[in-house]
Amino acid sequence: MRVTWGDCDPARIAYTARIPWFALDAINGWWEHHLGGDGWFQMELDRNMGTPFVHMSLDFTAPVTPRHRLICHVWPTRLGDTSVEFRVDGVQDGVTCFSGRFVNVFTIADKFRKSPPPEEIRRIVEARIPAAQSG
Amino acid sequence: MRVTWGDCDPARIAYTARIPWFALDAINGWWEHHLGGDGWFQMELDRNMGTPFVHMSLDFTAPVTPRHRLICHVWPTRLGDTSVEFRVDGVQDGVTCFSGRFVNVFTIADKFRKSPPPEEIRRIVEARIPAAQSG
Amino acid sequence: MRVTWGDCDPARIAYTARIPWFALDAINGWWEHHLGGDGWFQMELDRNMGTPFVHMSLDFTAPVTPRHRLICHVWPTRLGDTSVEFRVDGVQDGVTCFSGRFVNVFTIADKFRKSPPPEEIRRIVEARIPAAQSG
Amino acid sequence: MRVTWGDCDPARIAYTARIPWFALDAINGWWEHHLGGDGWFQMELDRNMGTPFVHMSLDFTAPVTPRHRLICHVWPTRLGDTSVEFRVDGVQDGVTCFSGRFVNVFTIADKFRKSPPPEEIRRIVEARIPAAQSG
Repeated sequence: MRVTWGDCDPARIAYTARIPWFALDAINGWWEHHLGGDGWFQMELDRNMGTPFVHMSLDFTAPVTPRHRLICHVWPTRLGDTSVEFRVDGVQDGVTCFSGRFVNVFTIADKFRKSPPPEEIRRIVEARIPAAQSG
Repeated sequence: MRVTWGDCDPARIAYTARIPWFALDAINGWWEHHLGGDGWFQMELDRNMGTPFVHMSLDFTAPVTPRHRLICHVWPTRLGDTSVEFRVDGVQDGVTCFSGRFVNVFTIADKFRKSPPPEEIRRIVEARIPAAQSG
Repeated sequence: MRVTWGDCDPARIAYTARIPWFALDAINGWWEHHLGGDGWFQMELDRNMGTPFVHMSLDFTAPVTPRHRLICHVWPTRLGDTSVEFRVDGVQDGVTCFSGRFVNVFTIADKFRKSPPPEEIRRIVEARIPAAQSG
Repeated sequence: MRVTWGDCDPARIAYTARIPWFALDAINGWWEHHLGGDGWFQMELDRNMGTPFVHMSLDFTAPVTPRHRLICHVWPTRLGDTSVEFRVDGVQDGVTCFSGRFVNVFTIADKFRKSPPPEEIRRIVEARIPAAQSG
């Protein structure tokens, strides 16, 4: 992920409010990668499935700068009946800059109503939760 | 309009790409002011009328900073059969920072098809085009 | 705070990543209100004091829409030796949409080094921590 | 360039104000490509050279959607004594969505004063202006 001039604030580091934005792009990218190219846009419009956020928390451990690419590691950490939790770690030049936890609920998009995810989604997510964390 | 820390880039002035954003907020505010509180959101969802942009051009004459409020002057300058042109001038502390010209077409929102605007809209816009410019 | 068309995503509510942005604008506005107009920009450039974020967490309880103004309630909840914690609650039309907790550290801006805040800042923050929470 | 959910507005296309942002990212990417990885951030901080915008104009010819990657073609079209003009065309799935013209002036960054660019920059830009347009 490229961090650019426009992402930075006058302290010459990425503006704090940009960081959840990067993390959400990374989660969207995770879905695209595992759903054959479908991100939130296609999930909502083509699959009638929403995943609104109910929680996010982030710890910031080092500034994010345009000096290096920002690598975001994304993985699911928990799958509930109608929710999923993701972890996103942002790393630049080997240094962890932030670490975040994000909880989405699954909804039927056109009804904006909570609902268990389709079986396909459940399998995709479950298979990618690291063993130590799902056990 | 408040310009804040997060709007600025490392040169300590508002990032260029933020300025069209301010100008569009100002045009949206113009509609809200003249349509009884309805901006683009309500125009699209409640009135089924879209106003997509077909052109924008801006001249930047002074940096925009968080030191002063940004006052945006907005007025329509031309009304065609299916289009409207707005001028937006951004002023800080008495100095014009940018001046822009924006052209929208009127559409039927759910068909995304060009269409003359409702008579109410036509009257509202026409009445606000300065005389020297409409003559 | 006005929520506009451009803040919304295709689900027709404010995009999740915009919400920390609103909350940060609100914290910046709190400083402006209590520091005679000085927000982060002036704190950094004129007072050589930074307040980088080390933590944020948010719970989202209702969608944010352009139908209503977004009122953000901001108050400090804790003051440490070199840190301050803020609470920001976002309310629309009487409904709480999100509630967030934000931790900043105080730094000497040009050294990017943690440091206790000036006495003036300490007094301003302490006086505004609600009694039940500081006791 | 990935266009994502968060870039879209409720009409389900990229919000107009995001498009200059994409175009500026593309110009920054052009510099990075031709200056050994240095974009605006490094130009300003390491080379003490600014390139503030004095003009932008864009024509929007088709909506930008998350259905396809957005390919931005960037090239310089004119080099003056203290200014440079770029063209940016945005293409999705073979369709041109927007076409823009952007004028920057070269400055000595820490003095915010107009100045001819270094000889290296002049050569890099000149060599990339298409012949028909520079002749």
